[in-house]
Amino acid sequence: MNLGKFIVIEGLEGAGKSSVISRVKQLLDHQGVKSIHTREPGGTPLAEVLRDAIKQHWQEQVTIETELMLMYAARSQLLENVIKPALKQGQWVIGDRHDLSSRAYQGGGRGVNAELIENIRSITLKGFEPDLTLYLDVEPSVGLSRARGRGELDRIEVSGLAFFERVRKVYLEAADVDPKIKIINAMQPMDAVQQDALTVLKEFIQ
Amino acid sequence: MNLGKFIVIEGLEGAGKSSVISRVKQLLDHQGVKSIHTREPGGTPLAEVLRDAIKQHWQEQVTIETELMLMYAARSQLLENVIKPALKQGQWVIGDRHDLSSRAYQGGGRGVNAELIENIRSITLKGFEPDLTLYLDVEPSVGLSRARGRGELDRIEVSGLAFFERVRKVYLEAADVDPKIKIINAMQPMDAVQQDALTVLKEFIQ
Repeated sequence: MNLGKFIVIEGLEGAGKSSVISRVKQLLDHQGVKSIHTREPGGTPLAEVLRDAIKQHWQEQVTIETELMLMYAARSQLLENVIKPALKQGQWVIGDRHDLSSRAYQGGGRGVNAELIENIRSITLKGFEPDLTLYLDVEPSVGLSRARGRGELDRIEVSGLAFFERVRKVYLEAADVDPKIKIINAMQPMDAVQQDALTVLKEFIQ
Repeated sequence: MNLGKFIVIEGLEGAGKSSVISRVKQLLDHQGVKSIHTREPGGTPLAEVLRDAIKQHWQEQVTIETELMLMYAARSQLLENVIKPALKQGQWVIGDRHDLSSRAYQGGGRGVNAELIENIRSITLKGFEPDLTLYLDVEPSVGLSRARGRGELDRIEVSGLAFFERVRKVYLEAADVDPKIKIINAMQPMDAVQQDALTVLKEFIQ
C-alpha cells in the first residue's frame, strides 16, 4: 500500500510548472509532509541518458515510435526505481510531468497510434496513476513566448503552434473525463496561478 | 520497391555470427553485389547511444519493458535511416541481428508479454521483414563457453543457461514456421558452419 501521494504538475512549455512545483514543495514542507521531486523524462541514471537522447537535436530523423518508446522506457525506470519506493516509504512525490504528457505530446501532438500508446501504458504502468494532477492551462502562443524568453528550445519545443494546439486539446479532454486532473488557468499572472494551484492542493490534502 | 535484399544473421552468443557475416560479405563482393553491414542494437548515432544504454551494467534495475522499448527504438532508427534507404538504392544489407532477436531474447528469454511485442513490432516495423535469415543454432552451453573465451560478458550475456534455452526455443520455433529462416548447425567446426551458410545463401541468390 502507498502511504505517500503522487502529485503531478502538467502543462505546455511556459505554463509555469517550475514555480508551481516550488510552491507545492513549500506547502508540503510547511505541513511536515516529506516529499521528493521528479522530472520526466529523467530521474534515474539510465532515464537521464534517455532524456538527453530525447531532447538532443540529432542529424538523423527521430521516428515518432522511437520518441514514444524512449519516453516510456525512461518512465518505467523512474516509476519502479524512484516513485514507487518513495510512495511506499510514505514520502510524497511531486512530478514535473508524467504519463499524461506522453498521451498529449506523442499521442495528440505527434499522432502516434492510440492503441499502441494504450498498450505500452498498460504494460509499463500496470494501472499506476497519480493521485492528483494539476494541469496548468495556457494558450500555446502565450506559453511559447514565455518559453522563448528562457533561451534555446529543445528538439520537441521547436515544434510548431499547431502541434501544441493538439497537445493542449488532449490535456483539456483528459481533464474533462478524469476528476483527478484539475485545470489551473495559467494565463493569469504567476501569483494567481500559484494561488489557484495551492487552493486545489489544500482541498486535496484535507 | 526494394532493389536490394536484407539478409540477417541470428544466433546465440558464441554461435559464430561474426565470421559468417564476413564470409557472406566476401561472397557478395565476389559476385559484384554492393552491400552494407549493420548490427543491432545500433547503427545510427542515436541507436548506438541506445546500444550502450542497453548493454551497460547499471546500478539500478533495468525493467524488462525498458529493455524491450530501447531495442525497438534503436531498431526503428536503423530501419528508417539506414536499412530502408540502402535497400531502395539497390544495396544489400547484411544484418548482425534484427527483429527475431527481440522476439527470442525479450519475448522468450525475459518473458515480455507477447501481445506487447506484437503491437510494438507491427507499429515500428510496419510489416517490414528480412528476405532471408540465417539462424546459427548452437546449444547455449557451447555458445556461452565460446563467448566467455572472448572476454567480459555484457548485461544480457550474464543471464543464466535457462534464459538462453528459452531464447533458443523461440529461434527454433520461428524457423519451423517461417520458410525464410534457415537453420545452420553451428555446433560444427567453424569451417563447416561457414560452408553451410554460404550454400544456403547461394541457393537464395540464384
